[in-house]
Amino acid sequence: MTVPRLVLASRNEHKVIELRRILAESGLAVELLGVDAFGSDPGVPDVAETGATFAENALLKAHAVAAATGLPAVADDSGLSVDALGGMPGVLSARWSGRHGDDLANLALVLGQLEDVPDDRRGAAFHCAAALALPDGTERVGEGYWPGTLTRAPRGTNGFGYDPIFVPEGRTQTSAEMSSDEKDQESHRARALRSLVPIVEDLIAAGRLR
Amino acid sequence: MTVPRLVLASRNEHKVIELRRILAESGLAVELLGVDAFGSDPGVPDVAETGATFAENALLKAHAVAAATGLPAVADDSGLSVDALGGMPGVLSARWSGRHGDDLANLALVLGQLEDVPDDRRGAAFHCAAALALPDGTERVGEGYWPGTLTRAPRGTNGFGYDPIFVPEGRTQTSAEMSSDEKDQESHRARALRSLVPIVEDLIAAGRLR
Repeated sequence: MTVPRLVLASRNEHKVIELRRILAESGLAVELLGVDAFGSDPGVPDVAETGATFAENALLKAHAVAAATGLPAVADDSGLSVDALGGMPGVLSARWSGRHGDDLANLALVLGQLEDVPDDRRGAAFHCAAALALPDGTERVGEGYWPGTLTRAPRGTNGFGYDPIFVPEGRTQTSAEMSSDEKDQESHRARALRSLVPIVEDLIAAGRLR
Repeated sequence: MTVPRLVLASRNEHKVIELRRILAESGLAVELLGVDAFGSDPGVPDVAETGATFAENALLKAHAVAAATGLPAVADDSGLSVDALGGMPGVLSARWSGRHGDDLANLALVLGQLEDVPDDRRGAAFHCAAALALPDGTERVGEGYWPGTLTRAPRGTNGFGYDPIFVPEGRTQTSAEMSSDEKDQESHRARALRSLVPIVEDLIAAGRLR
């Protein structure tokens, strides 16, 4: 009996290991590959993240990788929703400052925008959508949510993006002061990926993953 | 018979003239003063605009000026709500870039954040809240709304703030390409101030303004 294979739409080895662990903990017999397994150019086009929601962006990526590899593909998209910013930066988290991927500029801008916002209105949450797409166009999405509050200055060096200013509910450390293991237990990404487990189980039971 | 007096919480002569014209057009016999009428320091403290809504900020300013002058006071607060930014910059319009009052930086940041947002998702609206506060604490708020869409580059030099990138519904010019007279007819500010007219009428009829 062969084990079903899934490909994760990411070149980040940490993400591959994280999802592999989540799948193993669930007892699912699935082989997880990273996009790198298809060589340096697996024919996956760069997908513009132009969706209005995390789910749309995750689906765009998952479908592109499923089409390029011929395998069921998992992709995720995530960001920070700040109450006092009407739920933004949201899908614009990685380019909030207008410069894509400039974590420091993005974080500094959020702190500047919230400078006059009092402590009792600094609620925020990390959101993640994890999408699974099959080469035949079938799609499923799971979502994860990590509520907390924002600090007034960055703290900690573990993590990226807005981690240094995000204090998860029930904690005093920022998520950049937590260990990777702690984050992997409770983060928005972990929750979204875990929500895919029963979806994958159902697809295996239905003979749709092989 | 004396004419009731109102004070506008603004040192901007254009704003004083605009409201004076709106009151005159409505046939209301009211004398409108600017804060300047109370000298260079009328004892009005600088009010931090920390409200979560335009109405809260307008009320903060109107109450402060009513308390300092002993007269009924009108104040307004306004900003731009962008659909693709979850309704922001909103109350943070004047400090969106983290630098208060830097119109060019604020506008450039919104354009940068919307760079990948397609034309059919570039809806926006200017909002204004106009508040009236009496020295006894009585308060009323009127709101005005000016819907439109955002361009991809600034156009026009008349106006300030986000005017150069805002095209009102039914027009092709930006609000910075419209004349002041045209803007004064249909803008969010004009609509909010006009919504105060029946409120002022009621207060006069009730003998609360004199």
